Amino acid sequence: MSKIKVGVLGATGAVGQKFVKLLENHPWFEVTALAASDRSAGKPYAEAVPWKQNTPIPAAVKNKKVQPCVPELDCKIVFSGLDSSIAGEAEEAFARAGYAVLTNSKNHRMDRYVPLVIPEINHDHLRIIEKQQHESNWKGMIVANSNCSTMFLTMALAPLYRTFGVEKVMVTTMQAVSGAGYPGVPSLDILGNVVPFINDEEEKLEIEPQKICGDYVDGEIRYAPFVVSAHCNRVAVEDGHTECVSVKLARKASLDEVRSVLTLKSLPQELGLPSAPSDALIVCEQRDRPQPRFDVNTADGMATLVGRLRPCPILDYKFVALGHNTIRGAAGAAILNAELLKAQGYIG
Amino acid sequence: MSKIKVGVLGATGAVGQKFVKLLENHPWFEVTALAASDRSAGKPYAEAVPWKQNTPIPAAVKNKKVQPCVPELDCKIVFSGLDSSIAGEAEEAFARAGYAVLTNSKNHRMDRYVPLVIPEINHDHLRIIEKQQHESNWKGMIVANSNCSTMFLTMALAPLYRTFGVEKVMVTTMQAVSGAGYPGVPSLDILGNVVPFINDEEEKLEIEPQKICGDYVDGEIRYAPFVVSAHCNRVAVEDGHTECVSVKLARKASLDEVRSVLTLKSLPQELGLPSAPSDALIVCEQRDRPQPRFDVNTADGMATLVGRLRPCPILDYKFVALGHNTIRGAAGAAILNAELLKAQGYIG
Amino acid sequence: MSKIKVGVLGATGAVGQKFVKLLENHPWFEVTALAASDRSAGKPYAEAVPWKQNTPIPAAVKNKKVQPCVPELDCKIVFSGLDSSIAGEAEEAFARAGYAVLTNSKNHRMDRYVPLVIPEINHDHLRIIEKQQHESNWKGMIVANSNCSTMFLTMALAPLYRTFGVEKVMVTTMQAVSGAGYPGVPSLDILGNVVPFINDEEEKLEIEPQKICGDYVDGEIRYAPFVVSAHCNRVAVEDGHTECVSVKLARKASLDEVRSVLTLKSLPQELGLPSAPSDALIVCEQRDRPQPRFDVNTADGMATLVGRLRPCPILDYKFVALGHNTIRGAAGAAILNAELLKAQGYIG
Amino acid sequence: MSKIKVGVLGATGAVGQKFVKLLENHPWFEVTALAASDRSAGKPYAEAVPWKQNTPIPAAVKNKKVQPCVPELDCKIVFSGLDSSIAGEAEEAFARAGYAVLTNSKNHRMDRYVPLVIPEINHDHLRIIEKQQHESNWKGMIVANSNCSTMFLTMALAPLYRTFGVEKVMVTTMQAVSGAGYPGVPSLDILGNVVPFINDEEEKLEIEPQKICGDYVDGEIRYAPFVVSAHCNRVAVEDGHTECVSVKLARKASLDEVRSVLTLKSLPQELGLPSAPSDALIVCEQRDRPQPRFDVNTADGMATLVGRLRPCPILDYKFVALGHNTIRGAAGAAILNAELLKAQGYIG
Repeated sequence: MSKIKVGVLGATGAVGQKFVKLLENHPWFEVTALAASDRSAGKPYAEAVPWKQNTPIPAAVKNKKVQPCVPELDCKIVFSGLDSSIAGEAEEAFARAGYAVLTNSKNHRMDRYVPLVIPEINHDHLRIIEKQQHESNWKGMIVANSNCSTMFLTMALAPLYRTFGVEKVMVTTMQAVSGAGYPGVPSLDILGNVVPFINDEEEKLEIEPQKICGDYVDGEIRYAPFVVSAHCNRVAVEDGHTECVSVKLARKASLDEVRSVLTLKSLPQELGLPSAPSDALIVCEQRDRPQPRFDVNTADGMATLVGRLRPCPILDYKFVALGHNTIRGAAGAAILNAELLKAQGYIG
Repeated sequence: MSKIKVGVLGATGAVGQKFVKLLENHPWFEVTALAASDRSAGKPYAEAVPWKQNTPIPAAVKNKKVQPCVPELDCKIVFSGLDSSIAGEAEEAFARAGYAVLTNSKNHRMDRYVPLVIPEINHDHLRIIEKQQHESNWKGMIVANSNCSTMFLTMALAPLYRTFGVEKVMVTTMQAVSGAGYPGVPSLDILGNVVPFINDEEEKLEIEPQKICGDYVDGEIRYAPFVVSAHCNRVAVEDGHTECVSVKLARKASLDEVRSVLTLKSLPQELGLPSAPSDALIVCEQRDRPQPRFDVNTADGMATLVGRLRPCPILDYKFVALGHNTIRGAAGAAILNAELLKAQGYIG
Repeated sequence: MSKIKVGVLGATGAVGQKFVKLLENHPWFEVTALAASDRSAGKPYAEAVPWKQNTPIPAAVKNKKVQPCVPELDCKIVFSGLDSSIAGEAEEAFARAGYAVLTNSKNHRMDRYVPLVIPEINHDHLRIIEKQQHESNWKGMIVANSNCSTMFLTMALAPLYRTFGVEKVMVTTMQAVSGAGYPGVPSLDILGNVVPFINDEEEKLEIEPQKICGDYVDGEIRYAPFVVSAHCNRVAVEDGHTECVSVKLARKASLDEVRSVLTLKSLPQELGLPSAPSDALIVCEQRDRPQPRFDVNTADGMATLVGRLRPCPILDYKFVALGHNTIRGAAGAAILNAELLKAQGYIG
Repeated sequence: MSKIKVGVLGATGAVGQKFVKLLENHPWFEVTALAASDRSAGKPYAEAVPWKQNTPIPAAVKNKKVQPCVPELDCKIVFSGLDSSIAGEAEEAFARAGYAVLTNSKNHRMDRYVPLVIPEINHDHLRIIEKQQHESNWKGMIVANSNCSTMFLTMALAPLYRTFGVEKVMVTTMQAVSGAGYPGVPSLDILGNVVPFINDEEEKLEIEPQKICGDYVDGEIRYAPFVVSAHCNRVAVEDGHTECVSVKLARKASLDEVRSVLTLKSLPQELGLPSAPSDALIVCEQRDRPQPRFDVNTADGMATLVGRLRPCPILDYKFVALGHNTIRGAAGAAILNAELLKAQGYIG
């Protein structure tokens, strides 16, 4: 069986590199196009990219010429790691031209007819694609994954929301520097430091989970009705966002009941999607875990880890969540979405 | 005027060293005794101590012989940085023998008749000392300062509590490694990492603020009636605890009203205590401050800094607080308490 | 084919953990015994060990009972990660009792009849084992690997020594904290810091390479006649020792000639030993590499990387070397030695 | 006595900020002009500068308008922290217009008639200014300080050179991120890492010391005849360059003899220049010092610290040197040079 041709938009950036790395040896997809800014276009990839992965540039793309970000790439799917300053229009152009656009950028996430998908949670939101194509008159489509810090919070919340309902969520994040791209955070700002502010981050974290946990009803996504309050911080960690979460449930549940529902296996696991972890939510038993340094690569970085589940004196329960921000929180999420699209027949 | 003789218990430990450093050139106090474990006793201080300050060992104590922790020291006041495994009995022995014990250890903090004092907030709690001495039949006394993470939270809360009342407080801390003493946190545990657990820390943070903000009424401290929920984390920061706080007030207040009361000047400032900052609560205007690396030494490490005051979608307001955990959060706090005792006539 | 039973001495320590991790799924060896101090003996491994690897404890040993370090273990080979304070006698006892002891400890490295082996360089030194057994009247044997910082220096030097001869070597190391074990380096000593001293390290680095590069002649190891001068530093890196090396060759060679010999493939590669990298010496072409963060896991941590080869105005050439200190520099080295012993028929 | 008016070129950059900070409350100088790129010109300083010091912006300059870097500033002296891409021409323009230019940039350091000055070592090189002015037909002058890593090496070498002569110097540096300015080193490049390359750095370190240690003879600087070989590395340290040095002396000297000459007091100390430390070279006695985290601010960052003096098996002696790269290694050096110029009558 021949592989599906895929392209990477913003291929020289931090997220783009992660796409390239994760797609090496992918069983279904083959990288046939790399696109980036005009400054890089025309150069061999190895020359254009400030490669910052801990494995070498895949041989198959090392000498591939970087192309401009216009919809003339030889592929069916494009993964977008474009900067939000240009992602909006570029991604629309690709969708209009018939490409399936899997985007990690924020621009279209909250669009009415763009599904914001975590396959284990809301795979049925893909049904909105039909409406998207109809309203926009696009031959292709745009499917978004969430912001990285949203991802781990929502993966931990989803089972609680489905079983008990959720009313209120307080979350404080401690986010890795890789989340800011490259060059990203200057070392003078983060060595021996905590930066208690990340531009636009709290806004995303306070609204995206409700869309993801929402219901598809008659061509619309009805947002879940809970409220999120977020404090976002940058810390001196390379990879892995840690989140301290307190949650108020809609109906009372014992600690054991809550503990027992913390698992996340559904369609992606049933379909055996290549990037799906066997369980996307893993509970740590040690009292001081999860920790980014030791746990972030669990399940190849595709799971969310939860620990320290305990009562909260103000809301109902509190816990710690952790995930790999550039894998499950970015490139890996988009790839899993593409696998779901393929398995569900959305892609030729 | 001759200075008052003071001793340091646990003088070779991390907090003990900070006492020694901060007391160098103190206008009222003079270190005349250094006490530590039997292993150190008998050695010159410079030989016994693994000095980890960024200034040299004060010349006046460099060759002073370390003594055992028994109440035979040539001084009136003892500052205790003893480990909690031995602080309880040792401090009582000193109080019984007539010393004023200013303790940073947790052992006696919650004792019914031991004042837990932040001079700008509850200097009137010193009145409980009379009861303490009467009930215990001590000639001396024990006065405690709070846990480091309690300190900054409480200093930020106190003006809100007094003006508007406080009902609920959610706090997530990101605490410096110096808070764990020396050798303390192994580097393999914290480089590139967050440890989402600190033994006993959340328990302290959830109960100490209520005692400090409480009222002295007829020989008793009546605890303030608010509830605190804490998540405590260790991060790769040398000095400075950062805290993300959300608070529900007892009565409605506008952002401007809240902003306008964030100041902490009272008796210590009026008395001109040597270690008192001109204002113990400083509001940062930049949107990404306070930060430990740049702000922790503000006001010689004796102030709490607050920033990012904004509405909280769940409680009423949220903000970030920061303070120097081994100065205002430990040794500096005990010294300020001693200055208050002296100024109020509690020490001969 | 049934696997050879192996034990780990000091199994709860940092090096011991790495043995346990690297031996999981080993094609030839199976961990059947875990030994540690009396404090740990009798406990299940998972309970006794402060596990600090980024993968879980292997299921096969999780519940295995830790035994005392006495030669009554059910295995043929023991890998020793014992602390040097006790390794000397314990390892001899095992050798006397017939075990093949593969030691990472320093105690016996420089013993006259103990081979100090890097299989790609001096596999013929194993011939000294016959003399060792004869002189000591041991049924088993002791085979040592070098100190971690010695490993990478010597792997880079060996091809130069063999081809051109080496007269003088200046080396400055920047060593990872994992080299000091656990708890090892306190975080207060290394965050934002360089510690320009490691106890005993320079002494090892200045004498071990000469033994490894030496010749086996008539039952003796004749040391290579070059001189090494070392400066050793600890830096805030988790894994990977970086070394800046200047070398004076015995005979003149052009930069191209030097460059062309930088490869290290010999018997281990020919024999296809499971842990042998395809080339044990890898030259980086980028001008700012190798770097621990990006390169340390190259070839599963079993290769030494070299970069920045250039003329030295004082000696002849200078370059940077890097290797994984707890894999090729410790546990992986001992395992590779055991594989060599097995392949060469030294182990039943 | 009224203060001398001084300006800062490149005032918004990392070195420029340090000038502004160190000149606050200077007894002789007063900052009357701040100049920077066109992008900043016209804005109040507080708005133009990404202030990264751990003290607030001095009140006196907070609202001062930033001016373009053209020689129309209201001052006599300009301190230049300009980027080398523009420093060359800009500094000449100021010198031509009559300003005394104290530059930290590399552009003019090696110019034949520009003195490269460390006041404790080669204050007599100022005599070359006469030739500079004559040859260039400038009314003003350019006086340079060395590269930061050069500074500490040369301060440690100078007493050895003067007393025993020096033939060869091997140096490996471990340099702080603040040396690269702001934003400078991306955090993804340095967290848990060592970067064994700094552009152009080794070249500077291999030639500047010879000029500084050289002799002024008849209107020329005759370079000292020793050879330097340098390896330069970036490490995860905020402030402070650590250097491992091996040196071959021109004539034999005992360890005690070498130890006894390690002091650096001369004209700046005799003149009592405000920024001169009482001794510019301090020997640490502890076996693991100096260390940046604990020692970098010794003598207000204006001294070089030396430790671990011991024999070198290849050259004669080896030791560790440390200094504050943005104070003594940059802004503080230029200010001390200006003080020397003033005291020696070079400035009106």
